[in-house]
Amino acid sequence: MLTDTRNSFRRIGDDDWMVQFTEEEKELLISLLVSTNFAKELVANEINDMEMGEKKLESSTYKKLIQIYDKVI
Amino acid sequence: MLTDTRNSFRRIGDDDWMVQFTEEEKELLISLLVSTNFAKELVANEINDMEMGEKKLESSTYKKLIQIYDKVI
Repeated sequence: MLTDTRNSFRRIGDDDWMVQFTEEEKELLISLLVSTNFAKELVANEINDMEMGEKKLESSTYKKLIQIYDKVI
Repeated sequence: MLTDTRNSFRRIGDDDWMVQFTEEEKELLISLLVSTNFAKELVANEINDMEMGEKKLESSTYKKLIQIYDKVI
């Protein structure tokens, strides 16, 4: 069941293509994330990577991650 | 770093409380999902659970999951 997904990508950097989701698809992904408890693991890993220096610690993103984490624990 | 998260929940069912994220937080979660490749696993698991009968197969949700899966593989 392969649909033509070429138009669902948006160029964000030289070689970076960001998938374009519809609002409904985003809502579904978010509710899946929360209902399966994946959100906590996903966000905790990212915070940890930033704190360990494995990922660039960009303060506004870091703050948002902490806010999300506080909501899902 | 605990903030007051009580107002970030929305009642959606008798005992179901859905976390309320801001638009920025949603965008961050979605970009994390895609960049860490978690999206594929998350969606594949859900599709599988529906096909195996472990979760109720609701056709419009199932179709959306397939669309998302086609975008992230």
